[in-house]
Amino acid sequence: MALMNGEQYIESLRKMNIKVYMFGELVENPVDHPMIRPSINSVAMTYELAHVAEHEDLMTATSHLTGQKVNRFTHLHRSTDDLRKKVKMQRLLGQKTSSCFQRCVGMDAFNAVFSTTFEIDKKHGTKYHENFIKYMNFVQENDLTIDGAMTDPKGDRSLSPSQQPDPDLFLHVVEQREDGIVVRGAKAHQTGAVNSHEHLIMPTIAMREDDKAYAVSFAIPSDAEGIFMIYGRQSCDTRRLEEGADIDLGNKQFGGQEALVVFNDVFIPNDRIFLNGETEFAGMLVERFAGYHRQSYGGCKVGVGDVLIGAAAVAAEYNGADKASHIKDKLIEMTHLNETLYCCGIACSSEGYPTEAGNYQIDLLLANICKQNVTRYPYEIARLAEDIAGGLMVTMPSAKDFKHPEIGPICEKYFKGVNKVPTEQRMRILRLIENLTLGTAAVGYRTESLHGAGSPQAQRIMIARQSNMQHKKELARKIAGIDK
Amino acid sequence: MALMNGEQYIESLRKMNIKVYMFGELVENPVDHPMIRPSINSVAMTYELAHVAEHEDLMTATSHLTGQKVNRFTHLHRSTDDLRKKVKMQRLLGQKTSSCFQRCVGMDAFNAVFSTTFEIDKKHGTKYHENFIKYMNFVQENDLTIDGAMTDPKGDRSLSPSQQPDPDLFLHVVEQREDGIVVRGAKAHQTGAVNSHEHLIMPTIAMREDDKAYAVSFAIPSDAEGIFMIYGRQSCDTRRLEEGADIDLGNKQFGGQEALVVFNDVFIPNDRIFLNGETEFAGMLVERFAGYHRQSYGGCKVGVGDVLIGAAAVAAEYNGADKASHIKDKLIEMTHLNETLYCCGIACSSEGYPTEAGNYQIDLLLANICKQNVTRYPYEIARLAEDIAGGLMVTMPSAKDFKHPEIGPICEKYFKGVNKVPTEQRMRILRLIENLTLGTAAVGYRTESLHGAGSPQAQRIMIARQSNMQHKKELARKIAGIDK
Amino acid sequence: MALMNGEQYIESLRKMNIKVYMFGELVENPVDHPMIRPSINSVAMTYELAHVAEHEDLMTATSHLTGQKVNRFTHLHRSTDDLRKKVKMQRLLGQKTSSCFQRCVGMDAFNAVFSTTFEIDKKHGTKYHENFIKYMNFVQENDLTIDGAMTDPKGDRSLSPSQQPDPDLFLHVVEQREDGIVVRGAKAHQTGAVNSHEHLIMPTIAMREDDKAYAVSFAIPSDAEGIFMIYGRQSCDTRRLEEGADIDLGNKQFGGQEALVVFNDVFIPNDRIFLNGETEFAGMLVERFAGYHRQSYGGCKVGVGDVLIGAAAVAAEYNGADKASHIKDKLIEMTHLNETLYCCGIACSSEGYPTEAGNYQIDLLLANICKQNVTRYPYEIARLAEDIAGGLMVTMPSAKDFKHPEIGPICEKYFKGVNKVPTEQRMRILRLIENLTLGTAAVGYRTESLHGAGSPQAQRIMIARQSNMQHKKELARKIAGIDK
Amino acid sequence: MALMNGEQYIESLRKMNIKVYMFGELVENPVDHPMIRPSINSVAMTYELAHVAEHEDLMTATSHLTGQKVNRFTHLHRSTDDLRKKVKMQRLLGQKTSSCFQRCVGMDAFNAVFSTTFEIDKKHGTKYHENFIKYMNFVQENDLTIDGAMTDPKGDRSLSPSQQPDPDLFLHVVEQREDGIVVRGAKAHQTGAVNSHEHLIMPTIAMREDDKAYAVSFAIPSDAEGIFMIYGRQSCDTRRLEEGADIDLGNKQFGGQEALVVFNDVFIPNDRIFLNGETEFAGMLVERFAGYHRQSYGGCKVGVGDVLIGAAAVAAEYNGADKASHIKDKLIEMTHLNETLYCCGIACSSEGYPTEAGNYQIDLLLANICKQNVTRYPYEIARLAEDIAGGLMVTMPSAKDFKHPEIGPICEKYFKGVNKVPTEQRMRILRLIENLTLGTAAVGYRTESLHGAGSPQAQRIMIARQSNMQHKKELARKIAGIDK
Repeated sequence: MALMNGEQYIESLRKMNIKVYMFGELVENPVDHPMIRPSINSVAMTYELAHVAEHEDLMTATSHLTGQKVNRFTHLHRSTDDLRKKVKMQRLLGQKTSSCFQRCVGMDAFNAVFSTTFEIDKKHGTKYHENFIKYMNFVQENDLTIDGAMTDPKGDRSLSPSQQPDPDLFLHVVEQREDGIVVRGAKAHQTGAVNSHEHLIMPTIAMREDDKAYAVSFAIPSDAEGIFMIYGRQSCDTRRLEEGADIDLGNKQFGGQEALVVFNDVFIPNDRIFLNGETEFAGMLVERFAGYHRQSYGGCKVGVGDVLIGAAAVAAEYNGADKASHIKDKLIEMTHLNETLYCCGIACSSEGYPTEAGNYQIDLLLANICKQNVTRYPYEIARLAEDIAGGLMVTMPSAKDFKHPEIGPICEKYFKGVNKVPTEQRMRILRLIENLTLGTAAVGYRTESLHGAGSPQAQRIMIARQSNMQHKKELARKIAGIDK
Repeated sequence: MALMNGEQYIESLRKMNIKVYMFGELVENPVDHPMIRPSINSVAMTYELAHVAEHEDLMTATSHLTGQKVNRFTHLHRSTDDLRKKVKMQRLLGQKTSSCFQRCVGMDAFNAVFSTTFEIDKKHGTKYHENFIKYMNFVQENDLTIDGAMTDPKGDRSLSPSQQPDPDLFLHVVEQREDGIVVRGAKAHQTGAVNSHEHLIMPTIAMREDDKAYAVSFAIPSDAEGIFMIYGRQSCDTRRLEEGADIDLGNKQFGGQEALVVFNDVFIPNDRIFLNGETEFAGMLVERFAGYHRQSYGGCKVGVGDVLIGAAAVAAEYNGADKASHIKDKLIEMTHLNETLYCCGIACSSEGYPTEAGNYQIDLLLANICKQNVTRYPYEIARLAEDIAGGLMVTMPSAKDFKHPEIGPICEKYFKGVNKVPTEQRMRILRLIENLTLGTAAVGYRTESLHGAGSPQAQRIMIARQSNMQHKKELARKIAGIDK
Repeated sequence: MALMNGEQYIESLRKMNIKVYMFGELVENPVDHPMIRPSINSVAMTYELAHVAEHEDLMTATSHLTGQKVNRFTHLHRSTDDLRKKVKMQRLLGQKTSSCFQRCVGMDAFNAVFSTTFEIDKKHGTKYHENFIKYMNFVQENDLTIDGAMTDPKGDRSLSPSQQPDPDLFLHVVEQREDGIVVRGAKAHQTGAVNSHEHLIMPTIAMREDDKAYAVSFAIPSDAEGIFMIYGRQSCDTRRLEEGADIDLGNKQFGGQEALVVFNDVFIPNDRIFLNGETEFAGMLVERFAGYHRQSYGGCKVGVGDVLIGAAAVAAEYNGADKASHIKDKLIEMTHLNETLYCCGIACSSEGYPTEAGNYQIDLLLANICKQNVTRYPYEIARLAEDIAGGLMVTMPSAKDFKHPEIGPICEKYFKGVNKVPTEQRMRILRLIENLTLGTAAVGYRTESLHGAGSPQAQRIMIARQSNMQHKKELARKIAGIDK
Repeated sequence: MALMNGEQYIESLRKMNIKVYMFGELVENPVDHPMIRPSINSVAMTYELAHVAEHEDLMTATSHLTGQKVNRFTHLHRSTDDLRKKVKMQRLLGQKTSSCFQRCVGMDAFNAVFSTTFEIDKKHGTKYHENFIKYMNFVQENDLTIDGAMTDPKGDRSLSPSQQPDPDLFLHVVEQREDGIVVRGAKAHQTGAVNSHEHLIMPTIAMREDDKAYAVSFAIPSDAEGIFMIYGRQSCDTRRLEEGADIDLGNKQFGGQEALVVFNDVFIPNDRIFLNGETEFAGMLVERFAGYHRQSYGGCKVGVGDVLIGAAAVAAEYNGADKASHIKDKLIEMTHLNETLYCCGIACSSEGYPTEAGNYQIDLLLANICKQNVTRYPYEIARLAEDIAGGLMVTMPSAKDFKHPEIGPICEKYFKGVNKVPTEQRMRILRLIENLTLGTAAVGYRTESLHGAGSPQAQRIMIARQSNMQHKKELARKIAGIDK
């Protein structure tokens, strides 16, 4: 099958029977729901751009499994060049959607499961890698979007999976059958879950022997029996339901989404299982997926940052303040921070290396450095954008006021900036900045930057582990004349 | 008349005929409008606490005009002790409302207009100070809430008031009459405008001779002929209109508000005029008001910060993460930043000095230092709160899902943290953090911290002016042996 | 006896027989040693300024013990006004010496021992307070400089005093006699020890029952039998020994000093003992002294900061770069950071309160906030100063090259900045910046800011303890609707 | 000729007749001068490591001019792989010397002059590129160390070269002869000038038509007629002259150096001229050299950072504080900042591209991002190292005290940390930290990080130029619905 385009992707979702709750009701037609649709549009962009000649090199790749051209989001990286192109593709999509486009988790999961299953099989003689190669063929051929699902609800953070009062707070196998397994539990904070054709489940932390039932990885269609989702609220989400809000949305077309995915005794057939009880590999799988995903943030958030920087520059122009030296300096600082993130994304890619299975892994230390910076800089970029935008961003009336026959002209008059720019344009750019710093997209640009792919402390632990402090101490003792 | 309590204040608003537009419609009953009411509740708290014995010393003062006990929000500061108590009162109210309680602008305007009119009269033989004393008697006796209104729409920032293509982009006198003046224009970003009994108007910048018509200060009831307002949108504002949202609001009872106040040829009688063409005093008035208001932020935002720090601590506890050393350290850092703001609020107060008119002015340099820090630290405190809260804050379903017969128990099960805490409590505390970092209160805690009382660059200009760099250069040249 | 002046102070030191080692030799005449003398000059300035009419209000106070005018450095604070004046006096001295002037530790010790002995006596019926009042009379009458000595060598940080392999790593009583005690051990990092008439010893940490012998406080002349000191090296210290270095010194006249003070079985008579085994009061004494001393840094380092800011401004002028907007902005930032420290110093003073003994204690939380900021901002101020100074600060030849008949004119020619300023002046100002950021004064401005009065983590522990997190949590739960 | 080793390099310097002044005297034997020798040792390490098999891949390359193996410091980069290896080589040398090893400026100059001369010749039909290729052959064959010399004294920063009152404040051609040119002026802040076989001169800024005589590039032996140098002072420089200081040096073996190089009417033969009046290419040359050199800092300073981090970790261990969570966290933060710099160094390399001349240029935007971060993070890393080290670093007595028969054992006793570590080792590691944060190496690690390869503002200007703000504004207007 050829690469899908955006419309085909949307149609493919329409054919599924995805069960999702929102505001205490089962959503009848998720694809056309005004709160959900923008997040579908973002994913659709990953399909659309694959057909644009200018972006073909970034958006597509040649599968080493089939020799066919595939969307890079379904690609197994074959070189450091592939890893760098991944980051550039993500930056491009951030620029085009100004939101989370949700398809990265699947790509990152593919590459982590691919290499890990190879090593499990080597040790245990299992068939997980064979299963997974078959699965990847299916994904690539059908150009699917997959939710790479890792994070469990976790309950009490101070307790391990098997110690939780409720055993379901981490997803686990409740029955081992001849033909497969039955699983129960949930995956939380699932970005793009409702827009995905399938879920690719992974364990959420390194496991001990006691947690055997929790060391499980598999793939399953999103509308399989026993699966349903509950849609998460976002700041300003219901503005999308307001009639005439249009301009107030800031980013009308694109958005992100988060959901809880519940597995209520779901059956997984044998050939869709990629880990089942080999606890010692749970940690490797987590570390590899997290590594790829921490790299990802050095691309996608940089692209969104580009939009935010651009929006601040436009706002300054509309305010008649673009010549002020402090404004110029703030734009430089925003750019500096944004490009520092990009440097980290590129560096951990170009320092990548082949796994035993043959696909490429990023440099783990540098990917964690990347993500750690992502937990900080978007916040400062956002603060600077708000500084440049001015207070009007949060005191401006609604679009409806602007369209009111009497009040509208008053708004037009008093909210005008430089004379040549229509007030509506000024309003639009300020609403975009609001969207990114306080609104629906702030969930992606701020909170997801903080907690996605692991919260800041998770990276610090990895940095400590990867820092080779012993070597540094030897260097110091040598120079100091302690070691001869 | 005695000090009003909260209920009396609300009733007093109800009697007024304030004209406010929202979503393209004239609001019928602003006092009971679910989007407006929380901001009224915040102001009401300034009345309520004046009747609580424990807080009497902070909340009330003895008027030197009348010898009567007045709400400190209507007080003319008579000592540095008064200035420090002002800051403490503001911290208290921030703690009790976790929002902007809006009544400070009036208090800050009183004190700035009081001392400035004294000096204008001394130079010009005008009667502005007499007018203003009469006005203050009226305010104190009736325990009024006044909108101290300074910021004009400003249009093109690179042009002065009289250079703007539209002359109305700064409020100005359009007619000088025997019995008063007629004014036209608007005041933007007016915090608490809709809840105020009156507006006390001040010019927005230092003026040149050309801008004579723009150098005007006066007071006028909020429902005077020719005045109307347009209500500003806030992030998540319409959640307050959703049925059953309750828990999703984070802070159900309290909030802030912003509006554009339009003056459509409004008549101001002579005895309500406090400046009319004396351009050289516009700058002094602006500087003094801004000075007081920059001090204010060292109180109110610290109080809100206390709530946010407390919320983060509670969230950590509910997550079972409160014993982790990095969590403890983040709470310390938040406290450190918050108390640094408080130090600045206190310092500029205790270094205050009497004006020629006899009321006390804050130390101008230190008040600008205070506000400059307020443009930074709440953002970092918010980031740390989001870090501690975890991603659930933005991926959690709606309150309606929690109350749904089938989905509710699923939510209860999978969003539980430590076992002993009901999931609803966890949800509530996370929604409070969302409210302060992304929602309606973020407008007050973040954007207002940045732009209220002047944007960051305004403080930097004042810091440069007040820094006495000449003296510092002399000190350095002396030590370096350049000057003998 | 009247207040001494600088010369009298120096003479008084000359009469003492202080034993100090430096570079492996006993220093014959410490007072005139070129490496020691600048630190004596700094202390002398505390005497000199007490005779300058303009500074009398800050530099002197009226003793409540004797009713006499005393140098404020020997004063027991009687009001928050005294506490604020202390901070202002320290800022003044920082401005005049651009270094650590060393006399604060004594003043801070006086006030801590005064109030603590009162409370010990109240509980134990001891006579420590009486002893101490007698001692204070002696100090005030003779206008002495006292080394308030707290920090022990400490050895292995993970062990308590009595657990150390070497029992002397914390100073302790080795013999209880009828007429007094015999002590052994050392005090490390003693600022100004060699310039002090006496040492006032305090324990270094809170003690447990096991550490009884370590809970000891007393006063003793610096040249008492059994005491000797070892002088600490500072960056660039021996430049002061170079002939013709003059200009290279940056700050020729003033400096600081640090020493190890060794107590080799020193006898302390009964009336000089202020604590002896009452372990439960060791913590109080430490906390109070540290509190005062953390306040101090909000004065002294601000004064030094003023000089550094001024020096950077002069350097910019000499470079012809003072009109560049980025230079102006950096000077503003330096000022902003410096004044933030000052705000903290003032705030913890004006929020002070009387102790049971009647002298005034600073607000402990805010004093710790103050010091925590001091561990950060001077570093950033220094970095900005180095930025403005330019690389020449560290690539410039020696003063001797400038004075060489052939090479001198070459230096004069090529190191010239703006034409009207003699090259020597440029050199002088750059050497001052070097002195403060890398040289002898960097020890005071940077390292002492970090570790003096306790390292950063010590303040964080105190901030945690003083933050009343329980109250903040209650505020949050109330707003969130958890507590009714 | 084969690759030289360290000893051969030192011998080759000994054969030269370099004229250098220090402390107002001509240095007789620079190679063995105790203040100069450590900087020679650092350069010698660039020769030594080329013979270590383990490092051969990083330290050497194959010349595309001769096909011979050359030291990478003389290599013209042929790929992005070469660019990344350059950075890794620099990190390695930073780790081995803990100082500036000075040979990078030559390598960066080679690559900039190589590509720029190609483009000049293409436009002007000159022979500069041919000249330069011949020169490079000579350099590679003789494995030379070259001072790439760019920075002029500059005088008044607000004036262009030809506007300066003294025309020599920028190096310029004073005579055009048949066989060559005569130049006059100086190059300031020349790192490694005294250790270099030759100087390769470049203009210091973009030039206008008026500045024709200043647009000049050439190469010349360091001991050519008319050239002499004046050695710059460094913090703690004369400790190296103290007998017995040894341990006090912190880094006994290695160091950096800075000098002013004076050109007193020096004749340059035609075949050593690479630019002579083509003003429009001065900017390109500056930009390219600066670009390479800003990349360099993402390698060398990271290597020095590794040593400093290691030293802090060792100090914590010796203090018995290495298990404290705040210490571990600070080491993580230091590592995080250091690796962020490395990411930038790697990223601008892997995003490099071929010039018209065929060698590889780094990505200019990212190289400026790299250097901008280097102006900040080493300062914070240094602060954290000082925090971990503790105050003893600056209060510790001299090595001579430690060796004194009576005082030595006292030092041994009282400066001991954990019991099992000899006090001397603790002293050594603290002196190394002092060396890097305050001493001779601080000049390299701090000030050079700030000003080397251009001061911070220079990078900000380049970031603004390279940021493609227009594109970002278009992205924002598209998303906001302003552009369709």
